[in-house]
Amino acid sequence: MILTVTLNTALDITYRVPELRPHATHRVTEALERPGGKGLNVARVLAALGHDTVVTGFAGGVTGTVLRQLLAQLPTAGDGLGGGSRPGAVPGGARPGRITDALVPIAGTTRRTIGVVDATTGDTTQFNEPGPVVTTPEWSAFMERYGRLLREASAVALCGSLPPGVPVGTYALLIREAHAAGVPTLLDTSGEPLRRGIAARPHVVKPNAEELAGLTGATDPLRAARDARRRGAHAVAASLGSEGMLAATAHGTWRAAPPRRLTGNPTGAGDAAVAGLLSGLVEELPWPDRLARAVALSAAAVRAPVAGEFDRPVYDEVLSQVEVTEHPTAA
Amino acid sequence: MILTVTLNTALDITYRVPELRPHATHRVTEALERPGGKGLNVARVLAALGHDTVVTGFAGGVTGTVLRQLLAQLPTAGDGLGGGSRPGAVPGGARPGRITDALVPIAGTTRRTIGVVDATTGDTTQFNEPGPVVTTPEWSAFMERYGRLLREASAVALCGSLPPGVPVGTYALLIREAHAAGVPTLLDTSGEPLRRGIAARPHVVKPNAEELAGLTGATDPLRAARDARRRGAHAVAASLGSEGMLAATAHGTWRAAPPRRLTGNPTGAGDAAVAGLLSGLVEELPWPDRLARAVALSAAAVRAPVAGEFDRPVYDEVLSQVEVTEHPTAA
Repeated sequence: MILTVTLNTALDITYRVPELRPHATHRVTEALERPGGKGLNVARVLAALGHDTVVTGFAGGVTGTVLRQLLAQLPTAGDGLGGGSRPGAVPGGARPGRITDALVPIAGTTRRTIGVVDATTGDTTQFNEPGPVVTTPEWSAFMERYGRLLREASAVALCGSLPPGVPVGTYALLIREAHAAGVPTLLDTSGEPLRRGIAARPHVVKPNAEELAGLTGATDPLRAARDARRRGAHAVAASLGSEGMLAATAHGTWRAAPPRRLTGNPTGAGDAAVAGLLSGLVEELPWPDRLARAVALSAAAVRAPVAGEFDRPVYDEVLSQVEVTEHPTAA
Repeated sequence: MILTVTLNTALDITYRVPELRPHATHRVTEALERPGGKGLNVARVLAALGHDTVVTGFAGGVTGTVLRQLLAQLPTAGDGLGGGSRPGAVPGGARPGRITDALVPIAGTTRRTIGVVDATTGDTTQFNEPGPVVTTPEWSAFMERYGRLLREASAVALCGSLPPGVPVGTYALLIREAHAAGVPTLLDTSGEPLRRGIAARPHVVKPNAEELAGLTGATDPLRAARDARRRGAHAVAASLGSEGMLAATAHGTWRAAPPRRLTGNPTGAGDAAVAGLLSGLVEELPWPDRLARAVALSAAAVRAPVAGEFDRPVYDEVLSQVEVTEHPTAA
């Protein structure tokens, strides 16, 4: 199975309003709740690709209870997601993978995020609560759980922000544990947790262009990605928004571009890309194929209404059209 | 005791953000939850004024559970709210009243409201979820409860919007029940439920100027208030925002104006005014005194951070300075 770690899970709430007007009162015409946090979105996409996944991290309070109930209600089989049109695109054939809840209970209350969708423009305005404080005994319980889960994991994704009270060097610690267990790691975070995590030599980091520039100071993505590799990451797969992705690896450097710019909801596109990279890693696909899958999933996620889902026909179509070009090796 | 009815209760959530920017992602710096819905706010102000109150209506789901827990945690005694500076201002002396939870459980989930406070401007952007559907057996349980509570009530306030599935003529029904039990009624709602409710001859209606204009078509508040009386309301106490209130009654017509315009959070100002009017009614204060109290509470609510609370020193100060003037009787 593939393990995803989401230390700062969230109950994601989406509100639809006819039109967002600052300082006015809005009647919400539709309210949706779903289990959120980057690692949970990644797990949903991995499951749709046929990979069994286990999600861990923390959940607590009434929002944590609702989150776990919604997680248990996710389809784990037979939702009409068939195989892809390109060989190897959907490993495991038509069978979706299972999502197993291995979240660690905490006394604090899981945060909510509110995404307000303006039905007129389609734009989303996002409000993210801070996370709950994690106590030392809760952290110990998580580390014990993490160690046990690593024994069965073929790869681990470390996703998102750190809740209050969790040390900024935590991802470095989790990466070292995975190294010791022989499990490859993918790190998707930002800021200081990304900087510290990279120093622990993860197999893959997946920053966006802005995070990469913040990390290295270089505004050219290629230069910044190579700089991030020198800082410790074995491979850097940077998302360049609608322009696709760039990967700097020990085996070469590639750019992958979608055939056209897709408009829609960009929330979750990065998580879909992580699922593409991670599934490609455990399937031992060559980097160009991993990148193509990540770019196609990302584009297909933009066309789906909520994070953690993707539009399967768009995925199949884009996957067959992604253009991957190799860069000359750096001097 | 005074009974307040809130058919569409809400878990009120307040988010503070540094600055509201449409279509951006915001980190919420502070998240507060409190039991909401107009009648619950009215009850809190009544309790602070020394009146025992009972709140009824519906609550259900996880948000309903949280709402009831927060309601149970409200201070019912000894929170430093002393007597007022004007005789009769705080009935019952220094003792705050009790708030008793008589909400009827439902299978649906109580709605949330999210108020996003822009810390730069102080303005609030509000998102209100639709309420839960109320089933016929749940409605019957409520009516049975309402009938029993009326037997002990000295007055009843009927507050706010109707949840989906509750007939638009419901307030008229509740007013007739109260008439039959000999209990005076105050109606604070808007639109068609207000129009239908007025026809059942409530003792007091408390529209704002906009609701009043929508009801009668007259833009002059005095003319509109007198029109609303002709439609059935025994008395109309209309809030005119920062300009105070206007009352058209069988005993005369008065305007009450605060000494100065107070800036702050207008949410809950109308609910504080309802509490002022209702407490004045059960204490059999003359109309000018009821109006003065309502205007002072309203101003003091504007100076409090959340609905259902008011700034006691502001209340005492404004109460001594409200100017009440009588209008000549209509021809």
